[in-house]
Amino acid sequence: MTEPVFERLAIIGFGLIGSSVARVVRERGLAAHIVACDASESARQTIHKLGLADTVTFDVAEAATDADCVMIAVPVGQFEAIGQLVAPVLKKGAIVTDTGSVKEAVIRDLGPFIPEGVHFIPAHPIAGTEKSGPESGFAELFTGRWCILTPPPGTDGASVDKVAALWSGMGSTIQIMTATHHDKVLAITSHLPHLISYAIVGTATDLERHTKAEVIKFSAGGFRDFTRLAASDPIMWRDIFLNNREAVLEMLQRLNEDISALQRAIRWGEGEVLEEMFTRTRTVRRSVVKAKQA
Amino acid sequence: MTEPVFERLAIIGFGLIGSSVARVVRERGLAAHIVACDASESARQTIHKLGLADTVTFDVAEAATDADCVMIAVPVGQFEAIGQLVAPVLKKGAIVTDTGSVKEAVIRDLGPFIPEGVHFIPAHPIAGTEKSGPESGFAELFTGRWCILTPPPGTDGASVDKVAALWSGMGSTIQIMTATHHDKVLAITSHLPHLISYAIVGTATDLERHTKAEVIKFSAGGFRDFTRLAASDPIMWRDIFLNNREAVLEMLQRLNEDISALQRAIRWGEGEVLEEMFTRTRTVRRSVVKAKQA
Repeated sequence: MTEPVFERLAIIGFGLIGSSVARVVRERGLAAHIVACDASESARQTIHKLGLADTVTFDVAEAATDADCVMIAVPVGQFEAIGQLVAPVLKKGAIVTDTGSVKEAVIRDLGPFIPEGVHFIPAHPIAGTEKSGPESGFAELFTGRWCILTPPPGTDGASVDKVAALWSGMGSTIQIMTATHHDKVLAITSHLPHLISYAIVGTATDLERHTKAEVIKFSAGGFRDFTRLAASDPIMWRDIFLNNREAVLEMLQRLNEDISALQRAIRWGEGEVLEEMFTRTRTVRRSVVKAKQA
Repeated sequence: MTEPVFERLAIIGFGLIGSSVARVVRERGLAAHIVACDASESARQTIHKLGLADTVTFDVAEAATDADCVMIAVPVGQFEAIGQLVAPVLKKGAIVTDTGSVKEAVIRDLGPFIPEGVHFIPAHPIAGTEKSGPESGFAELFTGRWCILTPPPGTDGASVDKVAALWSGMGSTIQIMTATHHDKVLAITSHLPHLISYAIVGTATDLERHTKAEVIKFSAGGFRDFTRLAASDPIMWRDIFLNNREAVLEMLQRLNEDISALQRAIRWGEGEVLEEMFTRTRTVRRSVVKAKQA
């Protein structure tokens, strides 16, 4: 057990991420008291049953009252509503942080509600699975993964350090960057891969229904890799695409151009174009494995 | 040890698939004598070093001479050349089979070389990894996976049964269908996922080079799932796309339409369209897991 980073940590939204944070925070003594807040009654029952928090409530304001750190782990479309609820009760010197997958929109929606004397440190752990809900979390989710912090200029340095200490304590490595850069990098490394997975699984299942192509039976040929990402939480991902629109559309445009080039090479039988492209991408896998992110 | 299905099995092309076949065939006694044939000297050295076959040669005709079964496991663009080499030496009653990922082209290219009294049974095991070469194979690769046979009308039933017995012996489940249907199903379940993976990894690495977006560092957000497929053998995949052109282009067209629909929904902020789509695809993952193909 280390010295707690926070006395009272309130986690608003107790899904895969929130409940994983609670598990590792408790395991490693990173907070003395954990408050769990979730709007879903069945989620709260699960939290009680699994003993994941010291206090469990559906009331956001109650959860944030007296908290030293309020971590918001709900879909990014709900940050404005949460901001309205927590703003009146936040105590002086408290830290508000989050785990949202989009950072400019979160700063835009939540920032105006943060009172004088409270510090908002936007954060995003690059970790997850296709599963949702408090029962899906696990303490090792963040081990060896990156956590990106995007504090706006002028943010209190000591508060940034505390949020960094929390994530380091959970096993993550910290990287600080601007919200704009974060949203662009994540658009290509996370948002576009999910969008394409949703699209291809949709295309395949329409085909299965209409032409009796056995896509699930023979999914081991590659298709199954896409079904994992396409099983991710629908509300969370709807909100990500709506809130990182420009960056996602730009990446999609670039991808469309590259798909068209491959399409043309196939149509005209240009084997050398395909071979050159496929040889180049092969080395990327090695880099991912080497960076221990495979 | 069961009764061998074949006395002398010659495997032409000793990569991931060929060497995995050799391993499991030997382990389970499915052939009395294994002949390995590969054009690459370093591959032949590996075969010797690992003791994967009873006879090792670079000479296709020598390998096929006296074989009861010749299994061709080279990229599908090389089948015509292999056909010319094996045709003169195939013994009466021999079985020729293959492991190619495209079946109409294989039948078109190899079929004309098959002599009277020799039986050609096209086959395709739906299994693989992103790794290549004889050192990458393993005996369990086909366990619990499908093997599709596409014998043309009029094919000798006893020969189909023997090839089916070989794959069943290796742990696979057999499905028989037409080559046309196979090529269509594989276009969506395997070829399109690989093509899109190659495209997206290409798009991302161009971006990494030009704008310093850290795509490998933060690949755990989803991108890494694509790097595995995009690391697959470039020559093998070049040949697949060139030889299943029409089906792949049709699937790509369908996918493009679905991507455009999502693109439009993002641009116009149509959250309900996204949510409906993402909810529908979520159930597909459950089916894949249930079908034990995850």
